Amino acid sequence: MARTASSLWRTLKAYQIYGANTDVGKTVMSTILCKAFERSDPAQNVWYLKPVSTGPLSEADDRHISRFTSQIKSHCLFQFDEPVSPHIAARTRPPLSDSEILDGVLKHLTECSQAGPGVALVETAGGVHSPTPSGSSQADLYRPLRLPICLVTDHRLGGISASISAFESLHVRGYDLDAVLQFQDDHYQNYSYLRSYFEKKGIPTVSIPQPPKRELNEEEDIEVMTEYYDKMAKNEGIGELLSELSKRHQTRIQRLEEMASRAYSQIWYPFTQHRDVSEDTILTIDSASGDFFQATDSTVTKDKNELALLSPTFDGSASWWTQGLGHGNPELSLAAAYAAGRYGHVMFAGTIHEPALTLAEKLLKNLKNPRLGKVFYSDNGSTGMEVATKMALTASLERYKWDVPKSDVGILGLKGSYHGDTIGAMDCSEPSTYNEKVHWYQGRGYWFDFPQVKMKDGSWVVEPPAGMEDIFGETHVYPSLGDVFDIKSRYDSVAGQKYRKYIEETLHRLVKKEGKTFGGLIMEPVILGAAGMLFADPLFQHCLVQVVRQSSHIFGPSDVNSADINTWTGLPVIFDEVFTGLYRLGRFSSASFLQVHPDISVHAKLLTGGLVPLCTTLASDSIYDAFIGSEKRDALLHGHSYTAHAVGCHVANTSLNTLLEMDRSGQWQVYKEDWADAAAAPSSSSSAPSTASSETGLEVWSSWSKSFIQQISKSRDVESVFALGSVLAINLHDNERAGYNSSAAAGLQKKLLEAPTELKFHSRGLGNVFYLMASQTSTRETLQSIERLLLDVLS
Amino acid sequence: MARTASSLWRTLKAYQIYGANTDVGKTVMSTILCKAFERSDPAQNVWYLKPVSTGPLSEADDRHISRFTSQIKSHCLFQFDEPVSPHIAARTRPPLSDSEILDGVLKHLTECSQAGPGVALVETAGGVHSPTPSGSSQADLYRPLRLPICLVTDHRLGGISASISAFESLHVRGYDLDAVLQFQDDHYQNYSYLRSYFEKKGIPTVSIPQPPKRELNEEEDIEVMTEYYDKMAKNEGIGELLSELSKRHQTRIQRLEEMASRAYSQIWYPFTQHRDVSEDTILTIDSASGDFFQATDSTVTKDKNELALLSPTFDGSASWWTQGLGHGNPELSLAAAYAAGRYGHVMFAGTIHEPALTLAEKLLKNLKNPRLGKVFYSDNGSTGMEVATKMALTASLERYKWDVPKSDVGILGLKGSYHGDTIGAMDCSEPSTYNEKVHWYQGRGYWFDFPQVKMKDGSWVVEPPAGMEDIFGETHVYPSLGDVFDIKSRYDSVAGQKYRKYIEETLHRLVKKEGKTFGGLIMEPVILGAAGMLFADPLFQHCLVQVVRQSSHIFGPSDVNSADINTWTGLPVIFDEVFTGLYRLGRFSSASFLQVHPDISVHAKLLTGGLVPLCTTLASDSIYDAFIGSEKRDALLHGHSYTAHAVGCHVANTSLNTLLEMDRSGQWQVYKEDWADAAAAPSSSSSAPSTASSETGLEVWSSWSKSFIQQISKSRDVESVFALGSVLAINLHDNERAGYNSSAAAGLQKKLLEAPTELKFHSRGLGNVFYLMASQTSTRETLQSIERLLLDVLS
Repeated sequence: MARTASSLWRTLKAYQIYGANTDVGKTVMSTILCKAFERSDPAQNVWYLKPVSTGPLSEADDRHISRFTSQIKSHCLFQFDEPVSPHIAARTRPPLSDSEILDGVLKHLTECSQAGPGVALVETAGGVHSPTPSGSSQADLYRPLRLPICLVTDHRLGGISASISAFESLHVRGYDLDAVLQFQDDHYQNYSYLRSYFEKKGIPTVSIPQPPKRELNEEEDIEVMTEYYDKMAKNEGIGELLSELSKRHQTRIQRLEEMASRAYSQIWYPFTQHRDVSEDTILTIDSASGDFFQATDSTVTKDKNELALLSPTFDGSASWWTQGLGHGNPELSLAAAYAAGRYGHVMFAGTIHEPALTLAEKLLKNLKNPRLGKVFYSDNGSTGMEVATKMALTASLERYKWDVPKSDVGILGLKGSYHGDTIGAMDCSEPSTYNEKVHWYQGRGYWFDFPQVKMKDGSWVVEPPAGMEDIFGETHVYPSLGDVFDIKSRYDSVAGQKYRKYIEETLHRLVKKEGKTFGGLIMEPVILGAAGMLFADPLFQHCLVQVVRQSSHIFGPSDVNSADINTWTGLPVIFDEVFTGLYRLGRFSSASFLQVHPDISVHAKLLTGGLVPLCTTLASDSIYDAFIGSEKRDALLHGHSYTAHAVGCHVANTSLNTLLEMDRSGQWQVYKEDWADAAAAPSSSSSAPSTASSETGLEVWSSWSKSFIQQISKSRDVESVFALGSVLAINLHDNERAGYNSSAAAGLQKKLLEAPTELKFHSRGLGNVFYLMASQTSTRETLQSIERLLLDVLS
Repeated sequence: MARTASSLWRTLKAYQIYGANTDVGKTVMSTILCKAFERSDPAQNVWYLKPVSTGPLSEADDRHISRFTSQIKSHCLFQFDEPVSPHIAARTRPPLSDSEILDGVLKHLTECSQAGPGVALVETAGGVHSPTPSGSSQADLYRPLRLPICLVTDHRLGGISASISAFESLHVRGYDLDAVLQFQDDHYQNYSYLRSYFEKKGIPTVSIPQPPKRELNEEEDIEVMTEYYDKMAKNEGIGELLSELSKRHQTRIQRLEEMASRAYSQIWYPFTQHRDVSEDTILTIDSASGDFFQATDSTVTKDKNELALLSPTFDGSASWWTQGLGHGNPELSLAAAYAAGRYGHVMFAGTIHEPALTLAEKLLKNLKNPRLGKVFYSDNGSTGMEVATKMALTASLERYKWDVPKSDVGILGLKGSYHGDTIGAMDCSEPSTYNEKVHWYQGRGYWFDFPQVKMKDGSWVVEPPAGMEDIFGETHVYPSLGDVFDIKSRYDSVAGQKYRKYIEETLHRLVKKEGKTFGGLIMEPVILGAAGMLFADPLFQHCLVQVVRQSSHIFGPSDVNSADINTWTGLPVIFDEVFTGLYRLGRFSSASFLQVHPDISVHAKLLTGGLVPLCTTLASDSIYDAFIGSEKRDALLHGHSYTAHAVGCHVANTSLNTLLEMDRSGQWQVYKEDWADAAAAPSSSSSAPSTASSETGLEVWSSWSKSFIQQISKSRDVESVFALGSVLAINLHDNERAGYNSSAAAGLQKKLLEAPTELKFHSRGLGNVFYLMASQTSTRETLQSIERLLLDVLS
């Protein structure tokens, strides 16, 4: 969905007129409103816009308005002669896209807003879901504008149902109704039922007499209608409604303007040093669509009446890495509502329901990991990682029966890793800014250094940690990102040999010399997110898993005697794919980049496409078996109240189906082609097929363009950069402070805010790392405009 | 919502015919389907039911069916002469309730199912939301049956929109469409657009020619219609649809029958020793409405074709204590969809959106706790309690600046308390079955014994722990439950004095003699849930808070010098209201029972009315201020990806508004009156107003009846019992094993399953404690039938 402003101005009140059905009198009602607005304040402009009209020009709705009003400025953007649905009428013309219509309406409203105080009515065609010229639904097309709605009900037989269903279709798309407009039919009395229905929802209604029957003689017709309109423009109910509309307009603006200060005094924000926050830095989000928040714009002050109060603001962190299918996605809304309507939440101990079973089966199938056999549900990445850790530690203790206190068993991981904010998940990471002041935190384990992948000055390199060249080898340049992922070719390289030697020696030292005990290996595959978007060398991660699996002799006195190749050996391997999985890096499974199968795999964030919390921890049967015992206490005694809640599971199924279908149907082809040579060059040291194959779903690609990455890597401000999947991470030079304490990213954020552009950003920095994350539905156009801006701003 | 079977039989296929609007040809389409079904298999019965019909008898739809078919058994339950909406037509008759209609349809279908193989069509009136005789919506009335739907689209101008909106209204109520039936209109071509629309959703469609125009001459009319029907009954598309319907019916049953075994092999259940689970013990939930799951019934085997495959099964644990407003509540579905449509999830660091701000303000206002000033969001009770614990520990360390390792600072609590399954929340509880085998768990603190409130043999008693009469006093009998809650009157009693002495001495010993350090007091007010529904003496909890607050001299070297009475003293007090709050015990705040205000208050479960995970941790400003500092690391560095997700917050607002309105409007009056004398007797030792006042919202009451509680407390099997709010807990005698390891509750569950009754249960036992939890919308009728059954089963 393109960037489109949500439309709210201080002195222009704009409304969209929807009908509960076709032919319910939208235009008559619009005419009445126009005349009444004009009458209530002759000084204000009254605008009428019909974006798309079908049927003979002489009967067009904007003509009707002109005929019966004098000062109203009426206008039609696109006119089709045939009196049928626009998607059929439009067949005779060159294609008319949704964004052309949306842009046309916005342009018109923007012009209206600059002409001084006024009211603008935008009348839709047919019913709420009537097709647009492109064949989409009208209610979806206009959604980014999210104008307050005046709904004209259906006063005929059956009209109660039609009116309520029309309302529900608008409601599930996040529209607000400001008024319900009714023609009275005293036989069917729909207006009476509907008045009570809508007033319970706090939506004001007005009921007025129906227009007179049409006269055959045009002159007479005009005469009686003129009389009717004059009378209705003075109707008391209409007058009250106009006051109510004004009040709501004011209230909405006032609330938007006070929300930040109320939030500042009442909300305790996550991960926020409140000393650094003020009312002015809190962004008020009125709604969101596609990649954009519709948010308040701090540059718009009260004396600038003509400026829109809301600005489309790019959701640069993909709402903490969760967003995948666009904000306000109607498919996800309907999925959430369906599951809520069918089940609510049904308890998940000893029961099963379709969404939970389908999701478990879908994940097991698509992760293509023959080790995984069981799915455990929880609420977020942190709880899912605690579950994974409990699984691994118990499984390894059951096998090795170490005679050490349980609390002394640690985990192996990578430096800088982060797995969540609950104490158990924190304990899996070494001390850092995030956890060092947390009571009860105790880093339990050992965290390896590792080489990183970066694009530096136009080249892809694998770079050892500073001063550790003897351990990891010198910085090595690769022709493409695909070559970095070509694990088979790189396996026997000097680096590969060094990696394995280093890991083996380290494990030997830790366990045999220092007497430490470890119960699991935990890694985020490919990219360590919270650490500052560190791109780990996939070969190193591959080797770490491999060496751990071959080191049963180091970890315990006995090992498994299973013929099943899917039984874990060495230590259980946990992959934290909470951030990296489910297409965030361009593939369903980020483990596939490493060419190893974990024993336990954790998935959240994109799992629900960016809608509600849900997490799954998948495990192998050999892990699961460790919890089978004669006592209840042998079981995994973990579970949250809303475990496997139907809403989350069904939304996840819908999201994953959508993502899988995008993958299968080549939706990302343009990006993949851009990065095509990222697929590995023919392997030099091995005749085996390349890792970075061109098999669908296993490409190496990004939605950020390759040429942009190369160009920006040469910027003076930039230390290095990378892009993979929808992730873009720019490592900025900071001569003063490094890592999380650097303010380099904040500096770039400031420059972006001050740039002379209409493109607004919401982004989160990680010290000296500035990152942006697109959704899986971001358009190339949107991303290119961001790339241009970044190139402008960075020197 | 009453207990009503979801309707699914092996040999009877039942469908509900809905129209996208009135007058779209539902009856014509039904006639065609009836004839086609008859033709496809002359051996099967074909039934047609019109539950509610309006308009002249001679034109009634069931008559139409009879006229054009010979073998079809057509029937109408309720006939109104006036051709208007049923809610208007019904005005002339005695009120006709929704449940009468629903029961009538179910009775009819049950009879059909017993007559051998067949098909039954149930035709609705008007559009999907057309009002029923009682004025409710038809789509809501029939929802408990959740028959598969055949939707007749609207083929007229505007019909695309009407058809899609009608579908959406059904979809958000959790209905499944098995077929979309269309009349072709080649001018508007709705059928073509809609075919593609519905096929994308996997719903089969069929399009057939429209019936001939009605002839004026009745005989001619019958003749042309007969010809039309004969032709349509042989229509190829209709034939294919019938096969598809049969296939779907078989597939649905097959899937239901295999789900338990698939789940058994793929799902790792929470809190479950899988050795004790088998395919046969897993309940397959097809849907849920009100208090009832619609679940498979293990007593129905394949040879019993005439029995319904799904049984309404009482959700006895209120879905792990979350359920409040009934499963499948359309208001909550629409709320979820609205927020999803308006926002999706929008990230919550440094931003604000309306649902999150409104919820924060609503909680702050309605908890009526002047200490609370800030709201922190997380995902579930366990994460919310970790947040609370981090808050308390940091605040107390900031104040007292103890020179001890952070990990040595513990908490004070009650024996048996439980606060969640993540490691940090586990550490707040003493060792127990739940946590003793969990790696990294370390109980950090001290947990007090406490006296319990019980009804024993017809009397309310406060009973000390066994053998601790010298510390807590002898068992004391109270005339009513209200007297137990009369803290003011009881404060100076011998028990009150003993409690305070015991607490003071214990604190002195722990801190001054044993050198322990404590950073907070954590309690579940009134009832300790996971411990086995222990009802703590509210006076003891009151005194514990009071003594801790007066003991600054014990806990630290310095104390606060604030004039603000809302500043914490002694230790920060955390109330875990996750289970007990938000009307679970009959009041918005369960702290109100104790007459003390916590410094930190945690709310989840009922917060969203039983739909999706969400948790709030509220804190006082004096807690919050401890996290303000010059460094990011001074902040509370906690936050989950979906923090304050808009769907959860908006659903919570809708739920809380509903609960508050039920309270305000006296929805629970019948229960409150039953328990009226539970309000305290006039206070004897104090002239201050009684604690258990009759002020609205502060009563002591239960939705379980008082006489039932008294009666069952005298049962031989029962050690004691209590009810408060929607909670009923029965402590069963078990001479062999006590507590969590007892199987007494399991024994009662078995008896309930085997009882000769149609009332089916899903319940969770806690060792020797059998509990049931109603929702806040449970009807008296439902609960009374459960009470009768329990009285029958217990001896």
